[in-house]
Amino acid sequence: MFHKQHPPAGSRPGTLVISDNALPPRITAMLYTKDDVHVHESADIETLQTLRAQPGKLWIDVQGLGDEQLLRTLAAEFKIHSLALEDVINVPQRPKTEEFDLHQLYISRMVKLDERGSVDIEQVSIFFGENFVLTFQELYGDVLDPVRQRIHQGAGPMRKSGSDYLAYAIIDTIIDHYYPAVEFISNALERVETQVMNDVSQDILATINRMKRTLLDLRRGIWPQRDAVNALVRGDSPFVSKDVRVYFRDCYDHAVQIVDVIDASRDIASNLFNTYLSVVSNRMNEVMKVLTIMASIFIPLTFMAGVYGMNFSDMPELSYKWAYPALLVSMLFVAGVMLLYFRRKGWIGRTAPPADD
Amino acid sequence: MFHKQHPPAGSRPGTLVISDNALPPRITAMLYTKDDVHVHESADIETLQTLRAQPGKLWIDVQGLGDEQLLRTLAAEFKIHSLALEDVINVPQRPKTEEFDLHQLYISRMVKLDERGSVDIEQVSIFFGENFVLTFQELYGDVLDPVRQRIHQGAGPMRKSGSDYLAYAIIDTIIDHYYPAVEFISNALERVETQVMNDVSQDILATINRMKRTLLDLRRGIWPQRDAVNALVRGDSPFVSKDVRVYFRDCYDHAVQIVDVIDASRDIASNLFNTYLSVVSNRMNEVMKVLTIMASIFIPLTFMAGVYGMNFSDMPELSYKWAYPALLVSMLFVAGVMLLYFRRKGWIGRTAPPADD
Amino acid sequence: MFHKQHPPAGSRPGTLVISDNALPPRITAMLYTKDDVHVHESADIETLQTLRAQPGKLWIDVQGLGDEQLLRTLAAEFKIHSLALEDVINVPQRPKTEEFDLHQLYISRMVKLDERGSVDIEQVSIFFGENFVLTFQELYGDVLDPVRQRIHQGAGPMRKSGSDYLAYAIIDTIIDHYYPAVEFISNALERVETQVMNDVSQDILATINRMKRTLLDLRRGIWPQRDAVNALVRGDSPFVSKDVRVYFRDCYDHAVQIVDVIDASRDIASNLFNTYLSVVSNRMNEVMKVLTIMASIFIPLTFMAGVYGMNFSDMPELSYKWAYPALLVSMLFVAGVMLLYFRRKGWIGRTAPPADD
Amino acid sequence: MFHKQHPPAGSRPGTLVISDNALPPRITAMLYTKDDVHVHESADIETLQTLRAQPGKLWIDVQGLGDEQLLRTLAAEFKIHSLALEDVINVPQRPKTEEFDLHQLYISRMVKLDERGSVDIEQVSIFFGENFVLTFQELYGDVLDPVRQRIHQGAGPMRKSGSDYLAYAIIDTIIDHYYPAVEFISNALERVETQVMNDVSQDILATINRMKRTLLDLRRGIWPQRDAVNALVRGDSPFVSKDVRVYFRDCYDHAVQIVDVIDASRDIASNLFNTYLSVVSNRMNEVMKVLTIMASIFIPLTFMAGVYGMNFSDMPELSYKWAYPALLVSMLFVAGVMLLYFRRKGWIGRTAPPADD
Amino acid sequence: MFHKQHPPAGSRPGTLVISDNALPPRITAMLYTKDDVHVHESADIETLQTLRAQPGKLWIDVQGLGDEQLLRTLAAEFKIHSLALEDVINVPQRPKTEEFDLHQLYISRMVKLDERGSVDIEQVSIFFGENFVLTFQELYGDVLDPVRQRIHQGAGPMRKSGSDYLAYAIIDTIIDHYYPAVEFISNALERVETQVMNDVSQDILATINRMKRTLLDLRRGIWPQRDAVNALVRGDSPFVSKDVRVYFRDCYDHAVQIVDVIDASRDIASNLFNTYLSVVSNRMNEVMKVLTIMASIFIPLTFMAGVYGMNFSDMPELSYKWAYPALLVSMLFVAGVMLLYFRRKGWIGRTAPPADD
Repeated sequence: MFHKQHPPAGSRPGTLVISDNALPPRITAMLYTKDDVHVHESADIETLQTLRAQPGKLWIDVQGLGDEQLLRTLAAEFKIHSLALEDVINVPQRPKTEEFDLHQLYISRMVKLDERGSVDIEQVSIFFGENFVLTFQELYGDVLDPVRQRIHQGAGPMRKSGSDYLAYAIIDTIIDHYYPAVEFISNALERVETQVMNDVSQDILATINRMKRTLLDLRRGIWPQRDAVNALVRGDSPFVSKDVRVYFRDCYDHAVQIVDVIDASRDIASNLFNTYLSVVSNRMNEVMKVLTIMASIFIPLTFMAGVYGMNFSDMPELSYKWAYPALLVSMLFVAGVMLLYFRRKGWIGRTAPPADD
Repeated sequence: MFHKQHPPAGSRPGTLVISDNALPPRITAMLYTKDDVHVHESADIETLQTLRAQPGKLWIDVQGLGDEQLLRTLAAEFKIHSLALEDVINVPQRPKTEEFDLHQLYISRMVKLDERGSVDIEQVSIFFGENFVLTFQELYGDVLDPVRQRIHQGAGPMRKSGSDYLAYAIIDTIIDHYYPAVEFISNALERVETQVMNDVSQDILATINRMKRTLLDLRRGIWPQRDAVNALVRGDSPFVSKDVRVYFRDCYDHAVQIVDVIDASRDIASNLFNTYLSVVSNRMNEVMKVLTIMASIFIPLTFMAGVYGMNFSDMPELSYKWAYPALLVSMLFVAGVMLLYFRRKGWIGRTAPPADD
Repeated sequence: MFHKQHPPAGSRPGTLVISDNALPPRITAMLYTKDDVHVHESADIETLQTLRAQPGKLWIDVQGLGDEQLLRTLAAEFKIHSLALEDVINVPQRPKTEEFDLHQLYISRMVKLDERGSVDIEQVSIFFGENFVLTFQELYGDVLDPVRQRIHQGAGPMRKSGSDYLAYAIIDTIIDHYYPAVEFISNALERVETQVMNDVSQDILATINRMKRTLLDLRRGIWPQRDAVNALVRGDSPFVSKDVRVYFRDCYDHAVQIVDVIDASRDIASNLFNTYLSVVSNRMNEVMKVLTIMASIFIPLTFMAGVYGMNFSDMPELSYKWAYPALLVSMLFVAGVMLLYFRRKGWIGRTAPPADD
Repeated sequence: MFHKQHPPAGSRPGTLVISDNALPPRITAMLYTKDDVHVHESADIETLQTLRAQPGKLWIDVQGLGDEQLLRTLAAEFKIHSLALEDVINVPQRPKTEEFDLHQLYISRMVKLDERGSVDIEQVSIFFGENFVLTFQELYGDVLDPVRQRIHQGAGPMRKSGSDYLAYAIIDTIIDHYYPAVEFISNALERVETQVMNDVSQDILATINRMKRTLLDLRRGIWPQRDAVNALVRGDSPFVSKDVRVYFRDCYDHAVQIVDVIDASRDIASNLFNTYLSVVSNRMNEVMKVLTIMASIFIPLTFMAGVYGMNFSDMPELSYKWAYPALLVSMLFVAGVMLLYFRRKGWIGRTAPPADD
Repeated sequence: MFHKQHPPAGSRPGTLVISDNALPPRITAMLYTKDDVHVHESADIETLQTLRAQPGKLWIDVQGLGDEQLLRTLAAEFKIHSLALEDVINVPQRPKTEEFDLHQLYISRMVKLDERGSVDIEQVSIFFGENFVLTFQELYGDVLDPVRQRIHQGAGPMRKSGSDYLAYAIIDTIIDHYYPAVEFISNALERVETQVMNDVSQDILATINRMKRTLLDLRRGIWPQRDAVNALVRGDSPFVSKDVRVYFRDCYDHAVQIVDVIDASRDIASNLFNTYLSVVSNRMNEVMKVLTIMASIFIPLTFMAGVYGMNFSDMPELSYKWAYPALLVSMLFVAGVMLLYFRRKGWIGRTAPPADD
């Protein structure tokens, strides 16, 4: 459910809320030029200052938001506005992009699908300006290793382009990670669709609800990113060069397609729910038919037997020799008439088999 | 439910409606400069006039709208348009912002969540112009104490900035108070979601409805404020300086996020209702199955017993020694066949247990 | 339901349709200046011509649309376009405002709530131009008496302002009369909400439907007026002075708020309907449980009794002295087991009481 | 259902599809000036060419689209673009208006309500340019006779105005013919609404569905016409003079009102469906109550009788003289308790009567 | 369900994903001038280079996307941007149109309806620039043969116009192929609508769901194409001449109509589902009535018989001669009363027949 790390309402703007289980920041700096790459794990502020002074593009990746002092120093170093820092730390912030004097801020939401199909969502905040990209992540580990490898390999435009290309690569990677999630859910919906026709346990219901919830979460993650990327495509930001805008256009197409597929899946999930309801109804119908058939056949017969179980002294039929077999025959006849009636109504024979197969 | 203090239709514009249980106004004036703060509790009009003449920023907070004469005098002092005063007094007014010659009016709706989870909503009307902010509240007590403390402490830009910053601080605090309310409901929805699978009493239904209603109220409170704040961000008002606009942008982000979360919660609440309905259906199914199983097994057996309870004089089976045990065995056999049939249909054994656990 | 007085399709534009039960027009003319007021009841065309020639503002109010000749003469006198006259007579016309060379036309829909809560809706057409306002109403009697009183009293800007102010006063009064209607329905919805939990008769259903219908009617009356008033606020019309536009802005706020409240009420009414459905479902569940409990307990017992009512010659148990009490005890035991089972399922004891209280 | 006469996909643009049951075209030419009118029934192309050369306005009305050769010649005569001719012949085309060099095309959809309430919809294509109007209709017979009469009568602006006025008169007549259709359905909905409370047969359901379908068809016919007429009002077309635009504004108002009423009716029809569903539910509830009451009263009594029908040799009660009457009294007591219980639950007496009246 | 051939997120932009079952490309080149046509089946890159040097318009059609090397060479030859190539290969891409320096890209989705009514959807990517059109299709076989025939026949503007006309012809053919699909579904919906009143098996439900899904797929295919074609109509692209824009306007009209019909069909399908649900409910009602009637008649009778089957020694009625016939008459009377009661309730006779016919 929704939980935002917001300070008490009324706090001074820019107040940070460090949650108790926030992780201590791990800073990794990567300085690369057209020709080589240097990686500094567990960098401290001084190292960063040194690195900034050197030529090349610098990517500083901060994982873990658990040290207010450190984060504030870092923000000061990069002249990050206190409100922007608040957006970074007081997660979740709605995805958006905002232009500042020295850099562009892009608030993203990263999706990680684990092998059991549960979806983890985490905020990644990306600042990019002249020759640097600064990313903040809530947790250790991310989906950006392919980007790091591309920097190391040095093929393609990555090392030759400016920091806006790196920002693009990061954002594109994050957005493309929505694909496996929506495909996973799309497949799961298909599975459930087959299942729901045969099984109406409440587990199915819970599964459908869980999938609807995940789709809602994904949508809230990607929908505002679509707008944010579009702002970059339209050229609202001076930090995105014309060349890179073409790439963002591609990225925008992906975001739009993901929203499309999520909406279609939501439609299908709602449909599934309705199908579930009607299958339940159908089952109840089946149950009722069985009851009605059994009761309608045997209750009259029981009554007939009851009549001849009475102890009146003067019931002449009782002493006729043929009375007993005659009654049994009548009973068979009554049962047969009822069966025929139910068959004509289509309650047995014709429609029943498909329903309980 | 909706109740507006409106004068009889056709009254002259600007007619005020003082409700019978309106509280007598308590006016608190706070005069502050970069260097010090003076607070005047229970200020009267003369005091206010004196204070206005002094240098510094003046915040006049009026709690309680129960004295038409006083309010009109106050309005005259600050040159408030009679229609604006009507918006202040004849609550509730839809949140909005409007520019007048000497001040900006911002109509807000303040949410107070008490510890039992009930949400109180109250209108706060904020006028801000050169060196003053004038707030009107319906009831005593508000959520603005943190703002007052920040003025007293004097840290941050509060005392150094103009009255637009104070207005921002008030509006921001009011909007941020929607967070605890939506989080409370979000958590409550999660609790109910677990509950609904196990309990289908009408209490649950009433709870879901109550939450939907509260979400609707919250949405009607925040949605128009989003637009109003956006108007201030866009720079429609000459009373908001460029520096403060950045802060309103932050405030706007919060309003958008709150609307987002409310809409998601409404979606979830609707879902919950559907789940409730289907759980009720499922329960009914369970009940019907039990009835059908019991009736289908015992009604035929009762019929068989009934047959041999008849008093025909010539029922040869009755005198066979093995007839009684044979009949009992047949009964067992019939019962067994029925049980097997129900088991194959999945009514007992397989699917029943998950449903009633 | 919808019924429009339209001429046969294909008639010449401007063809008027006078319905059979249209009332003969009663014309009341009110001539007022800053200093005095003259009222002419049952005025005829000549009187009106005389009055128009005199200085002052003239309000001509026509109630009843049953005399084509008279209406056409009046229209000619005020140079009303034949299409505009058609809009006035062939009611209902969708609310709108339209500018003509010599006057502005505003088509309004007036709501009258009678004490039994039924809502009457009637079209009021308002022409206003230099120094005159001309209103057409379908029926005798309206909600505009407070406006007339304000003219008589002469306080406020009414007598001093132009005819646009009078037009505003009329429109504002009509729009403000939606408030009591929506409040009435809002209260009624609250009453029904309490009721629906305890009573699921079809009367409730009919009440909910009636309220939904009324809300739909109100919405169709106010929604287009919102746009029409907004056009006047935006200054589309040369017949509305800048001073009066401020008043129309207030009027626009009211229209927006009324639409808001109607939409919220519609939401609540839909909700109510769903609640109704689920309460019906719950009741059915209750009924089924009672049936299932009764049948499941007594059908097996009856079977047991049936067995020992059989007339086999060789049923040794029949002659054992303790057999009868033993059977009774077994029956109690079976009944007890069933009760325990139902209790564990929560069908009796725990959940039943809340449901039927 | 939807069936469009489209050529095989991939055909050359402008390929015409003449359906097998298309009627042979009947061409009626009407040449009129301010002073007189000439009508030529079954006109051929040569006649048309002669008529075009004469002064006056010419209305050529083509009913039946079954002769490709003739239609192509006619199109050539009036310089109709092959794509426009395709729109005319390959019906249905979505209503729209399009400007060509020499004329304006308006694709309309004409509604004919027959006395049994079934709605026929037919495309009418209208070309109008300097001094001519050319209409194409699918079938013989239309709703335009009043327009023809107005031309013959010569009163009003018809004969004095240009061909744009005639085009307006035709379009207006077609649009106004939606009124009787929506009124018919509106009344039918009201009738069904009364019925649905008392009768839940599937006929009602089919009726509701049929009405929903018709409303959908009407909406698809009028909605795009609203936009098309609006384009003419806005003055997009050089073939509509400023004077006639005022008339189109009236026509636009009608289209908007028709859409409004259709939407309201759709709302009501959906509501009706929900009411139907809940009445069905209520009925089921009634049925279940009767069953439960009967079963719950008599099953225990039958059990009691069963006990004393057992043949144990040692059942002392059997020989007590007062035992039989005592048992009957107990039975009455049990039945009374059950009845009381059901009454307290409100299943009999209080709520039952309203439900089955 | 949704499956996109996307590379692992984070891959370099322009990374192609060749699926395992992608077909080896078959390239067909068609070079035509006003006067003649040359077709080269299974063309290789060299042939294409030779053909491009010759005068005339060149259509290169690539079916099968299974050879990355070949596709990259081809892209290089036509200077296709790597991101555009990615859109072509990593299918499905959302339909769109994009302008590049040397050509326009149009991503389309092609629908093939086979005779069993299943709909295959495939992406067709169309590049068109000066004197060439380059199409990429996923599978062998397409719907474009009519276009090829028109080129061969040489009638009409095809061979005389530029490559933009060919592109139009291809896009128009693809869009027009949606017509048979929507007509097929429209007819199927009508058939199901008749069926659903008589048959409530789950097959119907599955059919409705399948149709809803197909409609959703079709909508996702045509909706974005509507926008793409509109962009071409508006003249956003320098590669579409003014003459051809008129044709695209026709194409746009078709796309809008298809969207309209799909939306109406979705509406009808949802309606069908609701009808299905209510028919199921009605059926259940029928079943319950039969059960209730049978049980309510025979349970009391069985009780009466049970009473006189008791073995009390002192039951005076038992020895009265007329008691037995009197009891039988009472039983008939009770049964008659019950039947009358049910008839008055409308459960038998009046409403039952329509329901089970």
